[in-house]
Amino acid sequence: MTDVQRHGVTRRWSDAVIHRGIAYFVEVADDPTQEMGGQVAQVLKQIDDRLELVGSHRKRILQVLIYVADLADVPVLNALWDEWVPLGHAPARACIAVGLAVGYRVEMIVTSALIDCSADGGPRE
Amino acid sequence: MTDVQRHGVTRRWSDAVIHRGIAYFVEVADDPTQEMGGQVAQVLKQIDDRLELVGSHRKRILQVLIYVADLADVPVLNALWDEWVPLGHAPARACIAVGLAVGYRVEMIVTSALIDCSADGGPRE
Amino acid sequence: MTDVQRHGVTRRWSDAVIHRGIAYFVEVADDPTQEMGGQVAQVLKQIDDRLELVGSHRKRILQVLIYVADLADVPVLNALWDEWVPLGHAPARACIAVGLAVGYRVEMIVTSALIDCSADGGPRE
Repeated sequence: MTDVQRHGVTRRWSDAVIHRGIAYFVEVADDPTQEMGGQVAQVLKQIDDRLELVGSHRKRILQVLIYVADLADVPVLNALWDEWVPLGHAPARACIAVGLAVGYRVEMIVTSALIDCSADGGPRE
Repeated sequence: MTDVQRHGVTRRWSDAVIHRGIAYFVEVADDPTQEMGGQVAQVLKQIDDRLELVGSHRKRILQVLIYVADLADVPVLNALWDEWVPLGHAPARACIAVGLAVGYRVEMIVTSALIDCSADGGPRE
Repeated sequence: MTDVQRHGVTRRWSDAVIHRGIAYFVEVADDPTQEMGGQVAQVLKQIDDRLELVGSHRKRILQVLIYVADLADVPVLNALWDEWVPLGHAPARACIAVGLAVGYRVEMIVTSALIDCSADGGPRE
């Protein structure tokens, strides 16, 4: 059952799970004391770091579900997001307001294809 | 990296992303000035159109996450949904209330298998 | 189009949909009259049952999106969740508060890899 790889496994969740060339992961700001701009910047940076760790890239993201605590924060989100997304490689995206744990203003659920993968999810030769 | 195909790419999102025979996309009503019934009808029609564009079909949908602005609208949603879903081919479905952008009453996140695809996501021979 | 398998198909949804070695399903408590602890216990048991039916296992779960009606219920959720997740096999997880149908306190959207599957999603030889 080694076709499922888990990174940063804790008792409650894994930082990333990889299966057949697709990475599944969730990011919230490591420091939730910051305002929306700071949290979005953190989350986007954390996504970049995670993508690199799992062998993926911003240009390989398939879908991002964005949860915000307050829709009034969306313009701040979009300004940073639009700069971050590689032109021509935007993922499918949903952005909705939900209840997040205290202090958190944004959470992103990412599904991303690995860079090098054969049809069966193993390393490309 | 041509195994990831994007349709209707904008600065912020793509209308659909395809990878290994699966299409990921999100729909909200093109005209959000309509009431729930009108918005649901639009979204379901837009899903049909999108499925056709990417080479999938209603009968191939794997999962739909439905976000509504108000749970009181769910009966209207369900009436139209039940007629739309092909008998015997219903997807996994969740339906929850969240905060949507002003005017929007429903949003659907769709994961659908393409019609013709080999194991590696390419065209079936 | 038999590569998409549906379990427990109703007019509105399927209890589980399987495609290429991945199961997609959604669980809410069969008995929503119970409090959070009872509902979480039910949902986790239902997930176990579903996993067995589709040929998967707790250790094969890729991602779980947890929707709760009230963030105040999260400690109860986490206590049961942490005991349930097999050590070393935690999925990617998001937990957010949303509006659920009356009485329901928790809903889980599960993506899980089947146990025995070849690269094309068929049975492993």
